[in-house]
Amino acid sequence: MTDKKVIRTRKQLLTCPAAMIAPRNQWYIAALSQEVTRGMLARQILDDHIVFFRAEDGSPVGLADRCPHRGVPLSMGTIQGDAIRCAYHGIEFGKTGACHRIPSQSRILPQLAVQSYPLLEIGPYIWIWMGDPANADESLLPDQFELGITRPGWRVTPMFVMEIACNYQLLHENLLDVSHISFLHPGLLDTGSMASASFKASYEGGRVRISRDLNETPNEMMAKTFNLTAGKPVRRTLITEAIPPQLSLIVNIFTDPENPDAPPHILTSPQGVTPSGNNRCLNFLINCSSYSEPQPDDAVPHLWKLFEQDKVVLEAVQRRFDEEGWDLPEISVMADTAALKFRLKMVEMVEAERKKRATAKPLAS
Amino acid sequence: MTDKKVIRTRKQLLTCPAAMIAPRNQWYIAALSQEVTRGMLARQILDDHIVFFRAEDGSPVGLADRCPHRGVPLSMGTIQGDAIRCAYHGIEFGKTGACHRIPSQSRILPQLAVQSYPLLEIGPYIWIWMGDPANADESLLPDQFELGITRPGWRVTPMFVMEIACNYQLLHENLLDVSHISFLHPGLLDTGSMASASFKASYEGGRVRISRDLNETPNEMMAKTFNLTAGKPVRRTLITEAIPPQLSLIVNIFTDPENPDAPPHILTSPQGVTPSGNNRCLNFLINCSSYSEPQPDDAVPHLWKLFEQDKVVLEAVQRRFDEEGWDLPEISVMADTAALKFRLKMVEMVEAERKKRATAKPLAS
Amino acid sequence: MTDKKVIRTRKQLLTCPAAMIAPRNQWYIAALSQEVTRGMLARQILDDHIVFFRAEDGSPVGLADRCPHRGVPLSMGTIQGDAIRCAYHGIEFGKTGACHRIPSQSRILPQLAVQSYPLLEIGPYIWIWMGDPANADESLLPDQFELGITRPGWRVTPMFVMEIACNYQLLHENLLDVSHISFLHPGLLDTGSMASASFKASYEGGRVRISRDLNETPNEMMAKTFNLTAGKPVRRTLITEAIPPQLSLIVNIFTDPENPDAPPHILTSPQGVTPSGNNRCLNFLINCSSYSEPQPDDAVPHLWKLFEQDKVVLEAVQRRFDEEGWDLPEISVMADTAALKFRLKMVEMVEAERKKRATAKPLAS
Repeated sequence: MTDKKVIRTRKQLLTCPAAMIAPRNQWYIAALSQEVTRGMLARQILDDHIVFFRAEDGSPVGLADRCPHRGVPLSMGTIQGDAIRCAYHGIEFGKTGACHRIPSQSRILPQLAVQSYPLLEIGPYIWIWMGDPANADESLLPDQFELGITRPGWRVTPMFVMEIACNYQLLHENLLDVSHISFLHPGLLDTGSMASASFKASYEGGRVRISRDLNETPNEMMAKTFNLTAGKPVRRTLITEAIPPQLSLIVNIFTDPENPDAPPHILTSPQGVTPSGNNRCLNFLINCSSYSEPQPDDAVPHLWKLFEQDKVVLEAVQRRFDEEGWDLPEISVMADTAALKFRLKMVEMVEAERKKRATAKPLAS
Repeated sequence: MTDKKVIRTRKQLLTCPAAMIAPRNQWYIAALSQEVTRGMLARQILDDHIVFFRAEDGSPVGLADRCPHRGVPLSMGTIQGDAIRCAYHGIEFGKTGACHRIPSQSRILPQLAVQSYPLLEIGPYIWIWMGDPANADESLLPDQFELGITRPGWRVTPMFVMEIACNYQLLHENLLDVSHISFLHPGLLDTGSMASASFKASYEGGRVRISRDLNETPNEMMAKTFNLTAGKPVRRTLITEAIPPQLSLIVNIFTDPENPDAPPHILTSPQGVTPSGNNRCLNFLINCSSYSEPQPDDAVPHLWKLFEQDKVVLEAVQRRFDEEGWDLPEISVMADTAALKFRLKMVEMVEAERKKRATAKPLAS
Repeated sequence: MTDKKVIRTRKQLLTCPAAMIAPRNQWYIAALSQEVTRGMLARQILDDHIVFFRAEDGSPVGLADRCPHRGVPLSMGTIQGDAIRCAYHGIEFGKTGACHRIPSQSRILPQLAVQSYPLLEIGPYIWIWMGDPANADESLLPDQFELGITRPGWRVTPMFVMEIACNYQLLHENLLDVSHISFLHPGLLDTGSMASASFKASYEGGRVRISRDLNETPNEMMAKTFNLTAGKPVRRTLITEAIPPQLSLIVNIFTDPENPDAPPHILTSPQGVTPSGNNRCLNFLINCSSYSEPQPDDAVPHLWKLFEQDKVVLEAVQRRFDEEGWDLPEISVMADTAALKFRLKMVEMVEAERKKRATAKPLAS
């Protein structure tokens, strides 16, 4: 693919309504495990309003966050054992979404129920299936070992979730494309040569991967970001990978050029890229490391500030699209080839779902 | 009517544009009497911008709040005797809405006039006729004696007006339906048995009435709400009535079970439910009591906090309708039967006005 | 023209989309000279987002404020010599808008360029050509000598720029029509007789001019506004002129009735009226005086407060148009005749541009 052939606008991908553009028959990261408690977590995912809480046995529950009676968000109510009680008329719904109690009458109406979303809790993340619950397919879950979450002896550290007021595709492309980091994050993630470093791109099974090899001598800030020693040269392999539709996997492998046979220092950041509502998305971050040293005390605020540099830019781009429409032109450069491949992959996934729905036998009404 | 037959969505009622859904040839409560002074009160009622003030003789005036010359809200101007002077070019309009003065010319233009709304001031409320002034019909005014406003020896206490960012129908249904009070207002308006208490519903002349009889022993908070003695048992009859299109009448009758022949302690709350603009409404509250003891000093903040519990829930419901459309489904329970009757009555009133307009002979243009 | 014949609504002028209503093949004031520095000034003009800065030689530059690569506002970036560098991927654009550098590749793409707007800096103002740069026509620039900007021996003082959330036509009419000043600015710009003073109106070359002669004895505040002596009578000629499409010229000529042959004290205020975006406009103010005494130290805050009186009213008028549509009626009085002439002139200019575009041979696509 040359830069002559690349798509010149995001029209093909992004002129579809935002809610349609994310495939639904997939697992998305819904929450950090630590966010879901015996209290309420209200969150919008793929435009659905969902309330999360834990049942008495500790298992996470995700219910549609709207009482089907008079439309009050259930997250304004209270937890009663394994049920959620609506703040308005006290109607209660259990873990499955079925109604348990209507205070003003003894007869339970079977149609008075809310959707319950299939959830999976694995290490620091809670995953949610956004399609028909009957079709929830665990085989579609990304390989947790590859992500670094379930590797024996590795340290897994939940970091934060950041809401960004942009379409999730902008975040995906931001995370895949590291040619921006010398400019948007000067001195924090590289030593200035990232944009001009040569790279290899590969496309396998719908995944898009970019890999770079560099020799760097980290400064204080970069050393803090990656738990390195400032001033001590490293050989670095940086791999960024977009896993459709919901993950960005960033892998840094550092080796000591003076001691090439020592075990490498590996860091993986499997980041959730979850569409929320109305051109907003959620960026979930955890760090997995092949070594056991804890990260510095201020790792979270340090990375939060770094991610805010992206947030500011992505939200400015989105505001222009909001103002002037999705068909504002873009002109791509060579370094965008991988991101454009990913866009096409996402269009394929969305189109495949659309076709499937179109040919499905309609339910009897 | 069984719960099988009830309307399952608010589509029938609420998919009409908000401005159309309130019948205009009716009296609505526009203001508490004490709100209208020699200064300006700007308020939106049934989507109309209106400015209220008092003339030199103390009579209330309501004029369209837009100078017909260059569109400045008249409420930004000043009162000059019985006239209102526009802030921009000093043009003045009298009580009838006719222009009195154009500073830049001596000739008055008859077409330079603003609408003057018929008003009626009765006790603590000022009522406004929102239809054609020529058709203002005092016989349509609710019976003030029944409301408790004009009963000899009764104490009438103006409380407050609360703006709620929801369609006025949501407020009407909230006030009619007391099955919510044990949950949304725990300990403030009942002792916890309201939702499950049996009730009688009746429908007469378009009005919907729900009545409950209870034996209660009020706690401190409920006692404060109703001027009762905490810990002393009472027999209570609670009647809530929706009077289309503009009033909610709540009547509490308390008797002493140890002294059943003593005069009952009666409280009426005739509440104005006035559509404002753009799915906002105004809730006017006064209290009328059959006894002369003044209410506690903190009665207003006490009730304000209680009403805010409704406001929070109603505005959350409205936000979802705003976001996802009026055809979001609702599933009704038995206790909603009266509210659904009232919805149908309101649809009839709106439809009757629409038909009347459609068959009216058009004005020569 | 009598008041019978005047246009009774702004429909004819203002029902066109706001972006279309300002002719583009014209010079508008873009900035006070002092606002444009080696830093960034981001400003929306005729709906275009533009970033202004100064090149190394001090000349002002105006570029489209959107990186054509991924849509980030260039004003979020940094100045590098004569170029602007995008904050996201470091792509650089020079004064002409051509791309100088793409960090991730050596080949420059000619299509990766941004529009560069023709600018002219004359005294305190920077003017911008909003049409096709190839057609930039300096003969269309208003006569700077007439404005008072280039007269030998005159003092020229930049004052401020005020953003007003209204369509620029409302500001034009506000500045042309002084019949409002006795009411909206009591005691600040006249001694109360302005609205009723007789006036002459003239229409030449598309310009609309209103002239009034008055005898006044300024109070303290009016004296401060015009650098006069409070209590000392003056003969005053006040001329307000609307110069389509972008200027309001206000001229005050004061003479001493006791010394009629002394040189008059002349003040000109050539005010920029520049459409910004979405029914917002910019009001640029400078003062030019035939005498050399500096204005009082607090002249800027004094005038700012005065102009805010207009801003408040104009924004209230605009909010109603936003809410209820541009076809809200207006009823005009005799004093509006000149403003209505000006509206018609503006409609002609916009229509002439539209016709020219319609008959232009389309570019080969």
